[in-house]
Amino acid sequence: MNFIAGLRSAWKKNDSLLCVGLDPDPERFPASLCERPEAILEFCTAIVDATADLVCAFKPQIAHFAARRAEGALEALIRHIHAAHPGIPVILDAKRGDIGSTARQYAIEAFGRYDADAVTVNPYLGFDAVEPFLAWEGRGVAILCRTSNPGGSEMQFLDVGGEPLYLHLARRVATGWNRGGQCALVVGATYPAEIAAVRAVVGGMPLLVPGVGAQGGDIEATVRAGRSADGTGLVINSSRAILYAGSGEDYAQAARAAALRTREAINRWRRGAPGGMPRA
Amino acid sequence: MNFIAGLRSAWKKNDSLLCVGLDPDPERFPASLCERPEAILEFCTAIVDATADLVCAFKPQIAHFAARRAEGALEALIRHIHAAHPGIPVILDAKRGDIGSTARQYAIEAFGRYDADAVTVNPYLGFDAVEPFLAWEGRGVAILCRTSNPGGSEMQFLDVGGEPLYLHLARRVATGWNRGGQCALVVGATYPAEIAAVRAVVGGMPLLVPGVGAQGGDIEATVRAGRSADGTGLVINSSRAILYAGSGEDYAQAARAAALRTREAINRWRRGAPGGMPRA
Repeated sequence: MNFIAGLRSAWKKNDSLLCVGLDPDPERFPASLCERPEAILEFCTAIVDATADLVCAFKPQIAHFAARRAEGALEALIRHIHAAHPGIPVILDAKRGDIGSTARQYAIEAFGRYDADAVTVNPYLGFDAVEPFLAWEGRGVAILCRTSNPGGSEMQFLDVGGEPLYLHLARRVATGWNRGGQCALVVGATYPAEIAAVRAVVGGMPLLVPGVGAQGGDIEATVRAGRSADGTGLVINSSRAILYAGSGEDYAQAARAAALRTREAINRWRRGAPGGMPRA
Repeated sequence: MNFIAGLRSAWKKNDSLLCVGLDPDPERFPASLCERPEAILEFCTAIVDATADLVCAFKPQIAHFAARRAEGALEALIRHIHAAHPGIPVILDAKRGDIGSTARQYAIEAFGRYDADAVTVNPYLGFDAVEPFLAWEGRGVAILCRTSNPGGSEMQFLDVGGEPLYLHLARRVATGWNRGGQCALVVGATYPAEIAAVRAVVGGMPLLVPGVGAQGGDIEATVRAGRSADGTGLVINSSRAILYAGSGEDYAQAARAAALRTREAINRWRRGAPGGMPRA
């Protein structure tokens, strides 16, 4: 799969800009699952199967697996998504970043070992640290631009020649790093004005937007600020608000209901110019 | 072990500022090892045992393990270092960085699962993304400041209020982030003038300096620029130049010889004010 093309198809096929983030936390699993040796894989698989027709992507967060020695579950989960739901891209949220020779190893981890369609990458080491990921033809690289945490401003809002660092970076990615058309940018939903500022400089480039749901980002403001001219361009991630919508044995159905509601809430605001009316 | 205290003891006990980086690359292993199922662990253990009395720290680079599904070898390697060479700190080079709830999982990965004494962290997400690592009392956090790759300047040299971003960051770490005295900074050996600029703003804070050896950093310039008032303050990393000093069955002895030479080359320049004479 070509990541960007796959994303465009999934936006259309599932009429969805919603990405479900897979951040397994066994303490929040239903009691019956907790005692099972493959609880993490079973939980994530059930969520995936319950929501795959409602999303444009899945985004497993690797730390939640690594902290629990569950790399095997992550491999099996991504294999399952590719086999059971072909056409839905998998974005491995790993926020890797290192100098060239080591970045090549991280690219093997993300694309070779886990077979992700895209990976999140940290830009602090510059373009030559991103290049080894781009060397994997067709794979996507979602570069951290403006993160959704309160302290993100400390670095990302530093003034660089009259504009904040995150916007300077967005411009560099749009005009240089994205030569091969494989890049996306990560821009948190907690700052809609900044999503709009990024959209204004990157054209139609996909924006991966974490922070709706548990982190409090506003869906209307996010979609109005970030939608591209054709009403797509966004990969709006929700993790905890969907994964843990229910805490009982019906957790997968509860997750599906939450995903349905979130997709609809997003779709209400996809059409029209910024500030336009919601679609009927 | 308290990381900073452990580092100070190891500097003294082994009369060494040298850190051996453990970046296993099976393609460069001696032929006899390659066919063995635990080649990565055997290779790294042999290097560790051959050099432990010559170093102030070991720095395993996690991507080299993760790309090869060798997390188990990394766990076993760190366990071995703690058991066989107590007092030598282990810095897990992982360059992690994420918002709080996820950073907590990365901290569990580094400190809980792998039992590293310190971990390298990326500063792009700001202080609240570093805090979950600092919450592990006594563990060290080595924050990327000025990296050794050619493209690092692209971000790190951006002008921020009259000084480059990396120096602005060094100042923030020294005056704010390092409240608990757990921080170190990563500053590449390829830019000695910048090591000196960082040293000038951070007082005695340890600097982890990759880039000597295979990456071409100059030892004299690095030590003169970065040594603290008492002739310590540096953790000078060499990986490939030591690991692959030999390619035959005597690779561990070759690594020891290379480590000895590097330690001596470093120690020649530890004493005296910047620009002073080498010690006799």
